[in-house]
Formats: sequence, C-alpha cells, structure tokens
Amino acid sequence: MIDGGITAPIGFKASGVHCGIKKEKLDLAIIHSEFPARTSIAYTQNKVKAAPVEVMIKKDSEFLQAFVINSGNANALTGAKGVEDALAMVSLTARELGIGEEMVGVASTGVIGHFLPMDKVISGIPAAVASLGRDKRHDDLATTAIMTTDLAKKEVACQVTLADGTLVTIGGMAKGSGMISPAMKTLHATTLSFVTTDAVLAKRPEGRWQRAVEGSFNMINVDGDQSTNDISVLMANGAAGGNPADDDPSFWEGVEWVAKALAKKIAVDGEGATKLIEVSVTGALTEEDARHAARAIVSSNLVKAAIFGSDPNFGRIIAAMGNSGCEFDLDKVRLLMSSNGTSVPLFEKGAPTQGGGESTEEIARKVLGHKMITIRLDLGVGDKKAEAWGCDLSYDYVRINAQYTT
Amino acid sequence: MIDGGITAPIGFKASGVHCGIKKEKLDLAIIHSEFPARTSIAYTQNKVKAAPVEVMIKKDSEFLQAFVINSGNANALTGAKGVEDALAMVSLTARELGIGEEMVGVASTGVIGHFLPMDKVISGIPAAVASLGRDKRHDDLATTAIMTTDLAKKEVACQVTLADGTLVTIGGMAKGSGMISPAMKTLHATTLSFVTTDAVLAKRPEGRWQRAVEGSFNMINVDGDQSTNDISVLMANGAAGGNPADDDPSFWEGVEWVAKALAKKIAVDGEGATKLIEVSVTGALTEEDARHAARAIVSSNLVKAAIFGSDPNFGRIIAAMGNSGCEFDLDKVRLLMSSNGTSVPLFEKGAPTQGGGESTEEIARKVLGHKMITIRLDLGVGDKKAEAWGCDLSYDYVRINAQYTT
Repeated sequence: MIDGGITAPIGFKASGVHCGIKKEKLDLAIIHSEFPARTSIAYTQNKVKAAPVEVMIKKDSEFLQAFVINSGNANALTGAKGVEDALAMVSLTARELGIGEEMVGVASTGVIGHFLPMDKVISGIPAAVASLGRDKRHDDLATTAIMTTDLAKKEVACQVTLADGTLVTIGGMAKGSGMISPAMKTLHATTLSFVTTDAVLAKRPEGRWQRAVEGSFNMINVDGDQSTNDISVLMANGAAGGNPADDDPSFWEGVEWVAKALAKKIAVDGEGATKLIEVSVTGALTEEDARHAARAIVSSNLVKAAIFGSDPNFGRIIAAMGNSGCEFDLDKVRLLMSSNGTSVPLFEKGAPTQGGGESTEEIARKVLGHKMITIRLDLGVGDKKAEAWGCDLSYDYVRINAQYTT
Repeated sequence: MIDGGITAPIGFKASGVHCGIKKEKLDLAIIHSEFPARTSIAYTQNKVKAAPVEVMIKKDSEFLQAFVINSGNANALTGAKGVEDALAMVSLTARELGIGEEMVGVASTGVIGHFLPMDKVISGIPAAVASLGRDKRHDDLATTAIMTTDLAKKEVACQVTLADGTLVTIGGMAKGSGMISPAMKTLHATTLSFVTTDAVLAKRPEGRWQRAVEGSFNMINVDGDQSTNDISVLMANGAAGGNPADDDPSFWEGVEWVAKALAKKIAVDGEGATKLIEVSVTGALTEEDARHAARAIVSSNLVKAAIFGSDPNFGRIIAAMGNSGCEFDLDKVRLLMSSNGTSVPLFEKGAPTQGGGESTEEIARKVLGHKMITIRLDLGVGDKKAEAWGCDLSYDYVRINAQYTT
C-alpha cells in the first residue's frame, strides 16, 4: 500500500473542475493515460441503463486512453438526446486531448431523469483537459469531482512486484453513497470506480476483472437499489514494462486489494452511515450460497436499523439468512458479533446463546457501540465463504433521500 | 362490506387478554368456531421458520376449530424448547375449550430469539377461553391482542349472496407493521392474518386461498424483510348453510376483497408510515413480470424515502422497474403519479415528460403532498397487470427499528 490514487501508476494524469452542473462543487473529471490502456469494464445489470452506459457497452473498446466523468446529473432516462450528449462529451474530450474518439470513455452520476446542461459541460471539458496533472493534488481533484452525496474521498494505491521483478503500481478512485447495491457484469455497475495500473496486460482481462468486481463492489450494499449508472473500470497502460502480468497472482492480488479497499470506502461512506458492517459467512455449501447470505444480511433494513440503534436484535440476522435462499443447518449455525477486539456468540446449536440471557445482550450492546461491526455467521454445511460490506440505516439516510432533488 | 371483524360470520367467537408477555398491552388472542372449520393456511417461505409455523406445517390440519395467538414474542429461533412451548399452547387451549388438540392452531409474533414466558402464557389461556364472545368488542379485543408495533387495528367484514341465494359472511383481522415483505405459500407468511367465514366449503381451498394471498398479503412491502412468522389463515365453518361455495365466484370475490382490504391496512400502518403507496403496473408481458415490477417499486428504499419527502424523483421508480427483471419497452413506458384526483405524467416516449420541466415537478410535488399516492406504470409490452401496496420510509421507521428490543 502506498500513498496515492488514480495517477499513482506511471503515465496517468487526472483533473477535476467545476463546470456548473452543480452550484459550487467540482463536477467534471478526466483521467488520461499517455499510452493506450487495455481496458475492462463492468456495467450495471439494471435493465434501465443510463445513456453513458449504453454508449460504452456499444463502444466495447479494448483500449482506452481517457475517461470523462461528470457528477450532479446521471444522464439517465434521457432518451436519444441523452445518448447524443454522452457522445458529445466523448467527442469533445477526444478533440481536446488530440486522440481518437474510440479511445475515450464516458460516465455520469447524479440525479436521474434530467438532461445534462451541455453548454456547461462543453465549457468544462477544455478546462479539465488543460488542468491535467499527475500528483496527489490532481488525484484529489478528480476524486472530488466524481462525488455526489459522498462525504469522503475514496482513493487508494498499492505496489506489487511481479514474478519477473517488475515493480507495478495500481491506483484507484471510486464514488458511491446511495443507490448502492451493485451487481455489475463485465461486458454486459451509481458506484463509479476506476482502477489504473502501469502493468502490461497482453489480453483483455474480463474474467479476472469480473472476479475482482464480484469480491469487492458487488458485495456492498447501502440501500438495495441497483443504480442505472454503475460502472467499474480497469485500465492497464503497460508503462511499467516487463513481462505481461495477465497470469501473475501478485498482480491480481494487488488489483483485488485495491478494489476491496475502494468498496469498503464506499460502504463506510453510505448515505447517512454511522457504522461499517462487515459480514463474513463461512461453512456454506457453495460460494454462491455464501455470497447470497452475506449480501442478504448486509442488505436487510431491519439489521441495518438495529445496528444503528446498537440494538442486539440478532434474530433479524438469522431471518435475513433464511430469506437468502442459502442452505444451512440451523442446529449447526453459529453467529458471532465482534468489534474492537470483543467478540460475543449470539446463536448456536439451534437456540440463542445462554437462552437470550441479559449478560449476552449487555456485551452485544457494547460491541454494537463501536464504529466497525463484524458479523460472523457459519452456516454449518460446507467450507465455502464470502464477505460483504454495508452500513447502518440512520435518520440521515432518510433525510438525504427525502430531499435529494430539493 | 359490513361493520365487523373476525366474529362477524355465524359461529365464531374471539377474545383478547393481557397475560404478561408485554408489560401492559393485550398479548394473547383466541379465535373459536362452534363447528369444525375447513382451513387453508399460507406460511412464510423464509427458510428460518418460527416454532409455531413449524408446528402448524407438520400438523397440516384440514379442519380447525380454534387458533391461539400471542404477540410480544415470536417464538422464533428458540429450538426444541420453542416447539415444546408452541405445542403446550395448543394442548392447553384444546383442554380449556374441550376439543381435540388436532383442532387448534397456534401463531406468534414479536421479538425473535427469546423464549416465551410460559408461566404467563399458561395463566393467560384459561382467561382468554373464559372471555370468548361474539360482538364488536370481542373483535376489537382479539385484533388488539395480536398487534406489535401496529398503531391501527386491522379488521374488516363483508357479506355476499351466493348463486343459491345463501347469504354468507366473511370476516377478517390482521396485524403487521414491520418485517413486512410476505411471500407466503399455502402448505409449505410477521403478518398474521385470519379470515373467517360461515360459508360451506366441500374441499380444501388451497389454490383459491393461495390466489387470494398472492393478490393481497404477498403484494405488500414495508421493509423488504420477510418474516419468520408470517401466516395467513382461512377458516370456513359452514354455519351459514346452503350449497358449497367452493366454485362460487361471488364467494371468492368476497374473500379476495377482505384479504386485499386487510393487506392495505397493513401497508398504511407500516412502521413509521406517513403515506400509503399504491402501485399499479399495466402493459406487462406476463402477470409474473407485472407482479415483480410492482413489488420492486413498492420495495425500493429510495422510492419510499423520496415519497416521504414529497420529492418527485421519479427516476428512482423507473430504476426500480429496471431492477425487477421485467420486460419493458422504454420508448413505450408510461409513468403517472396521482393523488386526491390530480394526476401527473412523469415519463413517456423514453424521456421525462416536458423534459423534466419545472411545472411538471411542481405538480408532482403537490401530488406527493397527500397521504395516498398512486403510481401507475405501463410497461408497454403486453396486457398483464398487478397491484402492490407499501408505505414511505420515514425517520420513525428508523427510530422504531433501532430501539425494538430496548
């Protein structure tokens, strides 16, 4: 892990400007690579897809050199005009950068169902291109410019040494606070996430990127509503040289680490969140079952509200497991909750630990008083496992989403 | 429709007492029929089933004469002792009523993961049997005794004249405020609902009762969490005489009306609810698609929070449709919102009506200011339809569920 973000890998620049989609905050970002970067993108599986997502799926570029991203407006449910606007963003960015249109990606996030103020976007793109740079400040500008209700900037970077000794850097930035329940698939995810690397990739890493997305962004849940705009991008520009990293385990370990770190940052910054919930399911018959159970728990409004209130109402966790469709053996199911080094068993051998005794409840209440809550659930029927991340359901979630367009 | 509840049909008595599971409120109800009643029951599909649900599925009685129901404790996740306790409730109720154990049903609702205080239940059952009666007051006592976080009593009754001229009465009571996302199946639903009738049924009406449940209780959503305790009971004791009503359309119309009226009462009394949301999906390719779309919209936290805040963020409705998996033609999708006689089109021909213009938004904001909001969505690909009901997501939902066991 190193200090840095999206421009940590060699050859990547970024910028973030205010063009006027939002009143005052930064709202337009560009990522640019000096060299064409082999790219793999995972998109939302919501059947209603925003215009930029439609454009990118159709484009299906194996190589990209830049991405233009606006916040404050999702360019979703905007029909033919929305597609035209997204294409205009691509075309202007390409012209300003002096590269081909096929080398430019586009993404949007913000309110759904409003047309982009194109006059502002058109004046913003040249300014964003003119201010591209490669340092911590530019990472911050780009990361800030893609935020909507996010309170925290989400960026991370790491370095790994490949089998051939090449030092490769992986950087990433993401946004996402509400409408978070991604289920992205490559080729066919409003989290936006961008991972850049200077590693060499000899072929398109769809399968490996899908796997990284499955174990990270696709395992977070703020509110159960999959966005029309989710997109998760990996760009590898090869600037570090050396042998291709396609099959190098260290490289993919690095990519997965970056993706998971960004995903957790999204979960902890969920709209109105006061606590991070980490769910670790073990003892599942299949990985699918483990994933379903972990996601069901982290997605339950009742579990989230109980954790917000530090209410050890663990029955809701088991009920969520029961709704997930996973196989389990209730007599062997084991539920523990922990935080800050304290762990408390809540359910085992088919019944509440200590018969729902007061002391267990008191410890559980203390455990729930902390900011990072881990729920460990063993299904008792196999050896497969999965992790998921989410946040609690607070008054602020309701406030933010009751007044979103106001 | 007539004034009345669970004892409106001939031969049914009910009672509600305080036995001490709750601090002060009524917490134990009994329904009793003078004659054996042909019974059909729909149960929760949550794989974690409360002890009374397990007991009733195993029992699978075609005829019942009584039901004992407690609130304040779900008797769920209570292992072998929970099953013993549920069986003890059945057995004591049977003895006090002087009927066979096989003729008594049991249901529970309340907190999950705590053992029932059986000493209190045991002293309560004789008191409940002793106070059985057949009038409006007894309807109210029973309905009140099955409430948890419910603020309103949910009961309804109607009369229908069958083909042979027989006047048949159908009564019902229900509870349910949180953990409401039922998907009950007969034979194998924490909404509790009981529909009584004095009609004659010659055979067990599983298919017809399932259909009534599908169009009513299974189409409501408060928080997306299916309970461990949902149960929906139809009891027909034949006391009205006449020909069997098994295939009488008027009879089933009456039953469906009662089920739907109770379901709406549950939706409008959802935890923290300030508004009733009615979703009507038309133009679907299949009934399944229509049901999925209607349920997805009424289940979306973002839609619910926007409606709470009277925020016309209709893009969230279309996004929820996109996540439901239903077929639609975005160019033909038509979305209207209405309340109190005012209707406003929000989306048609693939784009926001009037390009997201201010005037549409202003009207929509006024429409959302009322207490009963109807969302009409036409998918533009067929002629199938479905309705679903839910409530908004408010600060009070969070408060109630953050402090449930406190």
